[in-house]
Amino acid sequence: MNEIKSDLGWSTRERITVRGKDLPGEILGTLNLGDMAFFELTGRFPNEKESRMFNAMAVTLVEHGITPSALAARLTFLGAPEAMQAAVAAGLCGLGSVFVGSMEGVAKLLSSNKSAQEIISENKRIPGLGHPIHKPVDPRSVRLFEIARETGYYGKYCRTMEEIAKLKNLTLNATGAIGALACELGLDWRAVRGIGVMARAVGLVGHLLEESRQPMAEAVWQQTEEQATRHIKK
Amino acid sequence: MNEIKSDLGWSTRERITVRGKDLPGEILGTLNLGDMAFFELTGRFPNEKESRMFNAMAVTLVEHGITPSALAARLTFLGAPEAMQAAVAAGLCGLGSVFVGSMEGVAKLLSSNKSAQEIISENKRIPGLGHPIHKPVDPRSVRLFEIARETGYYGKYCRTMEEIAKLKNLTLNATGAIGALACELGLDWRAVRGIGVMARAVGLVGHLLEESRQPMAEAVWQQTEEQATRHIKK
Amino acid sequence: MNEIKSDLGWSTRERITVRGKDLPGEILGTLNLGDMAFFELTGRFPNEKESRMFNAMAVTLVEHGITPSALAARLTFLGAPEAMQAAVAAGLCGLGSVFVGSMEGVAKLLSSNKSAQEIISENKRIPGLGHPIHKPVDPRSVRLFEIARETGYYGKYCRTMEEIAKLKNLTLNATGAIGALACELGLDWRAVRGIGVMARAVGLVGHLLEESRQPMAEAVWQQTEEQATRHIKK
Amino acid sequence: MNEIKSDLGWSTRERITVRGKDLPGEILGTLNLGDMAFFELTGRFPNEKESRMFNAMAVTLVEHGITPSALAARLTFLGAPEAMQAAVAAGLCGLGSVFVGSMEGVAKLLSSNKSAQEIISENKRIPGLGHPIHKPVDPRSVRLFEIARETGYYGKYCRTMEEIAKLKNLTLNATGAIGALACELGLDWRAVRGIGVMARAVGLVGHLLEESRQPMAEAVWQQTEEQATRHIKK
Repeated sequence: MNEIKSDLGWSTRERITVRGKDLPGEILGTLNLGDMAFFELTGRFPNEKESRMFNAMAVTLVEHGITPSALAARLTFLGAPEAMQAAVAAGLCGLGSVFVGSMEGVAKLLSSNKSAQEIISENKRIPGLGHPIHKPVDPRSVRLFEIARETGYYGKYCRTMEEIAKLKNLTLNATGAIGALACELGLDWRAVRGIGVMARAVGLVGHLLEESRQPMAEAVWQQTEEQATRHIKK
Repeated sequence: MNEIKSDLGWSTRERITVRGKDLPGEILGTLNLGDMAFFELTGRFPNEKESRMFNAMAVTLVEHGITPSALAARLTFLGAPEAMQAAVAAGLCGLGSVFVGSMEGVAKLLSSNKSAQEIISENKRIPGLGHPIHKPVDPRSVRLFEIARETGYYGKYCRTMEEIAKLKNLTLNATGAIGALACELGLDWRAVRGIGVMARAVGLVGHLLEESRQPMAEAVWQQTEEQATRHIKK
Repeated sequence: MNEIKSDLGWSTRERITVRGKDLPGEILGTLNLGDMAFFELTGRFPNEKESRMFNAMAVTLVEHGITPSALAARLTFLGAPEAMQAAVAAGLCGLGSVFVGSMEGVAKLLSSNKSAQEIISENKRIPGLGHPIHKPVDPRSVRLFEIARETGYYGKYCRTMEEIAKLKNLTLNATGAIGALACELGLDWRAVRGIGVMARAVGLVGHLLEESRQPMAEAVWQQTEEQATRHIKK
Repeated sequence: MNEIKSDLGWSTRERITVRGKDLPGEILGTLNLGDMAFFELTGRFPNEKESRMFNAMAVTLVEHGITPSALAARLTFLGAPEAMQAAVAAGLCGLGSVFVGSMEGVAKLLSSNKSAQEIISENKRIPGLGHPIHKPVDPRSVRLFEIARETGYYGKYCRTMEEIAKLKNLTLNATGAIGALACELGLDWRAVRGIGVMARAVGLVGHLLEESRQPMAEAVWQQTEEQATRHIKK
């Protein structure tokens, strides 16, 4: 069994250290929240280009409007307004295989360094492709790859993913673009779902603040309950 | 009952809009993750000073090493490594009255615009004060107020909180400083716990990535189980 | 600081013990699930009357149809069908002050052993009273008190609660009845919210099974998204 | 898209109905909590033998002492004692592929109605087998199959699972036995993980009640923090 050991953070009376850096002296006022996430995931500060690229990726995932995740958070808040953290938690619980998980799938697939052709022939279903609304292009992917070109992170993984999308005649969606860019930045594919999870946590707080001012959860509940039981209540 | 209505985000085939701004065109590449959080909470982009102040506040809360919350996330990940989002969720569930909640308490208290003397006389227990390790000063509060002075956000709420700490002869801890700064930035006190929740989501992803490479959860479990049942197993 | 110690369960190679009883030999085939819950909460097996009363209380709380909690679970399942446990967790997160928490409030209030008059004069809002649909009587309270009379658990707490309801001219709802009965059974008020949490976990599994066969979450999402953004999409 | 429809429960002013049965009149005082779970999963009341078998299965899964799941719940409770439901939720989040998920795997595998030989030759890793402590036999499996024989539910799925265990020379553990018994009872394999989730919710409430009286979470945290950072604090 492994020993109990962590290198993430520790404090003494005068010092608070995160991954070897002095939190007040070297981090606060220096890193923005996205940079801090990059630091958590890689153990080093991003340079300016990495910062720009990574922040854009994370920001893409913050707010998607009324999603199942946002609804779950709002409905939870209705019952426990005193525990906002639990409402955010409820909203995060659904970021699994269907929505945010696809990003992780893309990064894992591309990490194998195979060609578009190989990836297509070996996988019946390829994540990161297709979108119910945004077709033929997802404007977020376009913009993210534009920033990638500006910062020098448009590379082989992006090209492979674009080639796959073209060959399959499907939209390269934002999760596909972000999965590829995570590989370009050298991030561990096991961290990639996490980018979506942290970004969505930011967005869910926004939803709960809106819910506290302009609530919809009760109306959603009442309306759904009425629709769902109409056939038996009569 | 309220109508079902949200102003946070929506999409059409070609456009993705977040709070009235075009996500690809106006937000990506412009806002960092902390700025995006500020935008979610206030509905407007932060200026440079607000960005610097708010990002420093959020970054302060990301990583606190081996906390109960980080342990809960790691222990959850041990049982469901395929559902990292649920491990982050589990870690967030404990950000309640004891830890992160104090920030909200400070912001709510200061929002009343009462004096230090009034606040002390009306409240038996004041949140944001005292720290088990960092005494007499919490170096994060010192640094945050330094950044506040640089950016022009050191104002009456900070002063009130410092006065309270002095009169009570207790450390003004980081949650106390952040609660005061949230008021200086004009944030709704109902959003303040959320800053901690989103920041900690970032940190928890860092813990889960470390756990996937250098696991401790199983050792913590086995050791605790052995200690806890020693008196009955014999 | 307390030592690390638990008396709930432990195993050796041949034996599995729960609170001092042999799980295979003394518990399996002897206790039903409600009895096991009673055993967890009190450390002793219920007698026949306690079993009947406690099971009725728990069963009351299992299924309330399309609640915010059930919707949160279903919406979570839509995104992460591979993690049903996380969908149940999401559904439980909202069992806070607004819904299930009222039961705890009733039990805590009655634990003070004050009279109906005292309780009314000291509390502006008394939990366990009123119901949006079931008025003037909640048929669950009627039935639970009937079972209480049969089993000998209709006592002073039930009477106090009925008196309060009468004086306030409000329905004694099911959470009010269960809070009172928890006191009659001598349960710790701190365990009372837990009865609702465990019961609802049972019901949420039922909802997720129905969702996997006859899904509604996607339709709820799409309909709500459309309603919520109608005013801005035009 | 499916229509919004549920058959689980509904109420009118005088009536509360669960799956077609009158809750106060037909269910309360008649079903115990395990029977109610069976009713939720199958849509019908269990007969006496089904009740005995199903309750024994569920009861087996309630309390496993200090597990990662129980620790996650206790550590969450330390930070948010006002939100016990969130602590239970945190504890449930880890009931994934590693622990409770194996039961689902067994049920799914056996649902194919293949022989022990076929199952072994087609699957490299078979769930429900092996146990770190209980070898060569898991006393829970022995007892559950004993109850299965008494109630007439020891059938082909139990035999197949026992044959697999014998051929692989591994302990048939409790999750293996329960997975087989779920098939004997005709339960949908998709409901099987849920039996573990609901049962564990019962056990977690027990842990949180013990934690509120005899806390260990803070000691676990402090000890682990100290061990984890020893190599860097020096």
